[in-house]
Amino acid sequence: MPNPISRTRVLEQSRRAPAAWALAWALAIACLLIAPLAHAATLPDAPATALPAEEGYRLWLRYVPVAGEWLARYRAGATELVGAGTSPTLRAAHAELVRGLTGLLGTAPQPSRQVTRDGAIVFGTPGTSPLVRRLPLDLRPAGAEGYLIRTVTIEGHSATVIAANTDIGVLYGAFGFLRLLQTRQPIGHLDIATSPKISRRVLDHWDNLNGTVERGYAGDSLWKWESLPQYLSPRYTDYARACASIGINGAVLDNVNASPFILTPLYLRKIAALAGVLRPYGIRVYLSVPFSEPVSLGKLKSADPLDPRVQAWWSAKVAEIYRDIPDFGGLLMKANSEGQPGPGDYGRTQAQGANLLARALAPHGGIVMWRAFVYTTGGHSEDRARQAYDTFKPLDGKFADNVLVQVKNGPIDFQPREPFHPLFGAMPHTHLMLELQITKEYLGQRTSMVYLGPLFEEALRADTWARGAGSTVARVTDGSLYGERLTAIAGVANTGSERNWTGSIFNQANWYAFGRLAWNPDLAAREIATEWVAMTFTSDPRFLAPVVKLMMGSREAAVDYMTPLGLAGQMAAGTHFGPGPWVAPARGTPPDWSSTYYSRPGASGIGFDRTATGSDAIAQYSPHVAAQWGNLATCPDDLLLWFHHLPWDYRMRSGRTLWDSLVRHYDRGVEWVKQARATWGTLAPYVDAQRYRLTADYLAIEEQDAQWWRDASIAYFQSISHLPLPAGSAPPPDTLAHYEAFCIPYVEGSPGPNPACPPADVTVPR
Amino acid sequence: MPNPISRTRVLEQSRRAPAAWALAWALAIACLLIAPLAHAATLPDAPATALPAEEGYRLWLRYVPVAGEWLARYRAGATELVGAGTSPTLRAAHAELVRGLTGLLGTAPQPSRQVTRDGAIVFGTPGTSPLVRRLPLDLRPAGAEGYLIRTVTIEGHSATVIAANTDIGVLYGAFGFLRLLQTRQPIGHLDIATSPKISRRVLDHWDNLNGTVERGYAGDSLWKWESLPQYLSPRYTDYARACASIGINGAVLDNVNASPFILTPLYLRKIAALAGVLRPYGIRVYLSVPFSEPVSLGKLKSADPLDPRVQAWWSAKVAEIYRDIPDFGGLLMKANSEGQPGPGDYGRTQAQGANLLARALAPHGGIVMWRAFVYTTGGHSEDRARQAYDTFKPLDGKFADNVLVQVKNGPIDFQPREPFHPLFGAMPHTHLMLELQITKEYLGQRTSMVYLGPLFEEALRADTWARGAGSTVARVTDGSLYGERLTAIAGVANTGSERNWTGSIFNQANWYAFGRLAWNPDLAAREIATEWVAMTFTSDPRFLAPVVKLMMGSREAAVDYMTPLGLAGQMAAGTHFGPGPWVAPARGTPPDWSSTYYSRPGASGIGFDRTATGSDAIAQYSPHVAAQWGNLATCPDDLLLWFHHLPWDYRMRSGRTLWDSLVRHYDRGVEWVKQARATWGTLAPYVDAQRYRLTADYLAIEEQDAQWWRDASIAYFQSISHLPLPAGSAPPPDTLAHYEAFCIPYVEGSPGPNPACPPADVTVPR
Repeated sequence: MPNPISRTRVLEQSRRAPAAWALAWALAIACLLIAPLAHAATLPDAPATALPAEEGYRLWLRYVPVAGEWLARYRAGATELVGAGTSPTLRAAHAELVRGLTGLLGTAPQPSRQVTRDGAIVFGTPGTSPLVRRLPLDLRPAGAEGYLIRTVTIEGHSATVIAANTDIGVLYGAFGFLRLLQTRQPIGHLDIATSPKISRRVLDHWDNLNGTVERGYAGDSLWKWESLPQYLSPRYTDYARACASIGINGAVLDNVNASPFILTPLYLRKIAALAGVLRPYGIRVYLSVPFSEPVSLGKLKSADPLDPRVQAWWSAKVAEIYRDIPDFGGLLMKANSEGQPGPGDYGRTQAQGANLLARALAPHGGIVMWRAFVYTTGGHSEDRARQAYDTFKPLDGKFADNVLVQVKNGPIDFQPREPFHPLFGAMPHTHLMLELQITKEYLGQRTSMVYLGPLFEEALRADTWARGAGSTVARVTDGSLYGERLTAIAGVANTGSERNWTGSIFNQANWYAFGRLAWNPDLAAREIATEWVAMTFTSDPRFLAPVVKLMMGSREAAVDYMTPLGLAGQMAAGTHFGPGPWVAPARGTPPDWSSTYYSRPGASGIGFDRTATGSDAIAQYSPHVAAQWGNLATCPDDLLLWFHHLPWDYRMRSGRTLWDSLVRHYDRGVEWVKQARATWGTLAPYVDAQRYRLTADYLAIEEQDAQWWRDASIAYFQSISHLPLPAGSAPPPDTLAHYEAFCIPYVEGSPGPNPACPPADVTVPR
Repeated sequence: MPNPISRTRVLEQSRRAPAAWALAWALAIACLLIAPLAHAATLPDAPATALPAEEGYRLWLRYVPVAGEWLARYRAGATELVGAGTSPTLRAAHAELVRGLTGLLGTAPQPSRQVTRDGAIVFGTPGTSPLVRRLPLDLRPAGAEGYLIRTVTIEGHSATVIAANTDIGVLYGAFGFLRLLQTRQPIGHLDIATSPKISRRVLDHWDNLNGTVERGYAGDSLWKWESLPQYLSPRYTDYARACASIGINGAVLDNVNASPFILTPLYLRKIAALAGVLRPYGIRVYLSVPFSEPVSLGKLKSADPLDPRVQAWWSAKVAEIYRDIPDFGGLLMKANSEGQPGPGDYGRTQAQGANLLARALAPHGGIVMWRAFVYTTGGHSEDRARQAYDTFKPLDGKFADNVLVQVKNGPIDFQPREPFHPLFGAMPHTHLMLELQITKEYLGQRTSMVYLGPLFEEALRADTWARGAGSTVARVTDGSLYGERLTAIAGVANTGSERNWTGSIFNQANWYAFGRLAWNPDLAAREIATEWVAMTFTSDPRFLAPVVKLMMGSREAAVDYMTPLGLAGQMAAGTHFGPGPWVAPARGTPPDWSSTYYSRPGASGIGFDRTATGSDAIAQYSPHVAAQWGNLATCPDDLLLWFHHLPWDYRMRSGRTLWDSLVRHYDRGVEWVKQARATWGTLAPYVDAQRYRLTADYLAIEEQDAQWWRDASIAYFQSISHLPLPAGSAPPPDTLAHYEAFCIPYVEGSPGPNPACPPADVTVPR
């Protein structure tokens, strides 16, 4: 567990002196200008195919050869490798260092038992390496999972030591060291100490046992159940390497809409085999389970959490799991949510349900991740945004100590933009964990170039003011606000069987960003993007700078062309892809499964009044926040229509009317994508043809989708506002009826066809 | 169209003089013994990882470097490349020759406009190559799609000419020439002429628009609908190359259980883009459509084939398809089968339904492939095996000339063994096409090593005796029996998004075998296996000989451990995986969706009486065949229980009782798999670690599955026969109740979970 005292002393890799960064960049630029002149000279004539085609399988762990002056410098700092793989984890660290350095430097470092020359790399823990033990290192800042990377002198030679208290710390340190080279940072005078601020850094896989992935946009499941446990695909190991390289230490293997078969002996045997592959990489396995499992699997009459037979069943089943998987992480539960069974079926509270599992898991050190994503049990159907808070806030303090309540970043459902969830800061006596969505369910799915770093950063830095300024969601999540030791963060994974893992190259950045922020929620999205681009493509500033700029603007562009000014939930019903602002509540489905429920457009204006004159959801926030957002003078534009219903001619701070501003946002989003395409079009010389082409074609798709969003949304809202478009804004080329009629029958990640989509309506949208 | 006269003059590549084959093998063996001695010497010590890991993506088109004497010989025969890529197809041929020769020989052949030295390769058609035009070649045997490969003298130099009447013939010839090198055949004195005997050689993809593949065991669909038409995955081209390399010239892109969305403008645009990628490789696109499309998509009140509005709708829709895809192949229809709509819904015949589509397609040169797989409309529920014949035979002569009735190889449904379908030979006035299943729905699915070459060969060589001896299914299919020009063969594809295309390495052989037999139904399964192993792995006889032996025995082994002696339909309900001999007819489902319907086990014995004393399905065969199979003295053992119900103590020709013989077959099947595993275990030195491991682990799975099949089947049948096991046969380790209770909830290729499988029954089967 991270030590709150030593944590404050951690020198974050990312917080090294600005001078070092500046020097690194100066050197990088100088190197690129001087050394490879011949190469640069040929670039204008070189076709895009000059670089060998890549499919993206290697993610950010490509380890392609370093060129120019950096090569000599790095070779001088990686002459020999001193350390032994005495455990599977240390063997993985050793193998990764050999693989990485061999790829980057063209030759493997010499294995050695002692430091015999300058430039040695020494790795290990005090327990496994006499050299590390003898060095005067203060390993306290490394905690249980962190590491030190320091330039030291051993036997009169300059050496780099990668040291940790634990084997997994050493593995993380190996990846950290390689990242320095991959991002072209100097390694001559290192003094890095880092440890994760959040103890459970988990990917939630919404993978079904039939091989599909709910809201998955990258092929089917990574887990090949049919050939487990006998066949262990090499891909499992590469998944573990990728996760470990960014510090992810847990994986929930199956969908929160769980199958009762997941806990059968047949599947537990398969899961144990997977756990065995992931274990050396520090990744614990967790499972999603249905609350009704004692009935469907255990043949009991009830799943009532107060029924002793139910309790005994869970205890026995959990013990069975731990027999095969001694380091099993715990259970994730979606209960009484979207039709799933739960304790409410027996008149029990969410806390009683969570504690049922907690009691079974506690003897084994397991935890419960209990989702707060409920919106049908609260009895406040007038505003779905209120319901999780209304359900869970009264239960504060009633959850067992090995339960984490898992709260999405916003109160609705992973929209392009939401305010932070009001439960953050509001349950001081309950462990809260943050759930982010890495898969882009509402943000363009497979094809859009939307870098989620800024969204994650915005969510983490949001200030709840629960204990005054600085009570950020990050501080709730990392436990520092209320002094908690059990802390966790989850990201809904975007991985699949697709060769490039995530459906597009740029979607990989979201997996990367989640991991990096889970390790240190204070990292900046831009910094992470810079690292990722350098590792995934090149550190050539002619590529890196414009691409980081693209990434940093991409999410706001999606907000602009989908749901600007605090709008939400405007996607087509069912698919969550493409515009559906006209979708009104349908008979037999909850009203909040519509778009107009959220936008409330009419003659009086647009927006959801969540102030005291409306649903008063704003009162769920701390008074400081509520006051700021509730006041039109201080409410930020980007949350305006989330909290306020305003007339179409409302005058914004910019001087524009609300209507004009709305239209301009849609236009701006489309324009951004056009510019992004144009920018990418200039970058072909710096990237291999295959990754270039995929990205270019996906940007073409995104441009069409953005235009479709913009045209359809404006056509619809104009039919209500009856206002002319602002000067320079082109009218939508089709009628509203055309946009309303069109629908998409199938999207990835849902079985389809969309029941709201008759074949005759499927024309060509764009 | 193949010319029946010239066809007889074709010199099949596979029929070259035995002396040439012997010489080739002698040379290969000599070469392997002499040249790479150093390599061979290191083999015993070399770990399996000595060869670079391969994932199987390159299929049989690996083009790995030739070693030893062959290298010099081949280099001497491939010095320069003379030919121009003046069309997309010729460019593909040129690119493939460059790629293949570069890979095999280490250097690209010199491009040249003239033959300037010995060893030139000249390719082209008389229309595109002046050199080819001037050569005294008789290109008639090449027909419209075939080719000649001949050693000639040009300008005093020895050269190899790859010539054809058409561009696609040249592409096929390029692959054919490369195959000679890949299989280490001499190329100094070539005189090959070949053309396909069947004009439409089609893969049926059962790919759903939601990305899943029905009965697919290799990941999800190859077609990425969400990013079409903008993004054209390089994989589409590699699919086309693989198909073209074995002569496949058509692809039905979507499942026979078709979605009404397939003919919407949205999807037609995507399909046109795919067709554009496949076109240069000679592959036409076909589509499966629902019969009810005029209602669901066209908003008509009816889909009655005699309704002029319905006819007009189809004509307009087909014209719309051809506007975007001028070489569109046609439509595949599953009508009034397993719940699909069809002409029967309007009181019309299957012929009236087929002719509706045929009339719309005829003006454009399109064809209809109309499936005969119906078993609920015939009114003969006492024997499903009768129903297709009873339905279709009376319609002989009633189908339009651009209709092919598509008939599965056997009368039930792709069982491990079936007699040939009685419709073959029985409809002289109707075009019949053969449907084979490449995906192993009933034959172990992803993991079993079952080479289907022997099954395909058995199906093609089956003699219907419709016009006396030699009236084989192959002769019905290739049109020679009844003098037809429109001929076709379809294979239900086993391809998917999996990196290795087919879920296992050995499943690739079934794709390969289908293509080779579609080109020439007279090829031998063993010959094809030999080619495939040499191309996919190595021609080293220490590997090739044992692996071909494994492959050739694999299907009979599966018959033995699943359904010996003519049994069929014994698989677990729903999943078609694993044993379910006890499955009895269930309320609400057809009786033929059970196992006991087919095996009819009881005190009186086992087997389905299809003779005159039973369903008399045997009367659907020609008298010669019916007499042979109807007579216990002449009925082959492997069809015995298909046609006869016999007492448990029936005395087989072997002298054993039926019961003993049955048990021995199960035992033999298990034993075969054990031996196969052991054999494969000795072959690690000859194959890279990754393909070795995958195959070894899959064989471990198959051994468990075979044992499970054997134990469960014997436990069940013994509970009815009440007979002791023959000496040396071990009793099943578990009770029948155990086997009956166990079920598998999810298999690939069906959405699952299996409704007949409650969670509590899912234990560990094996």
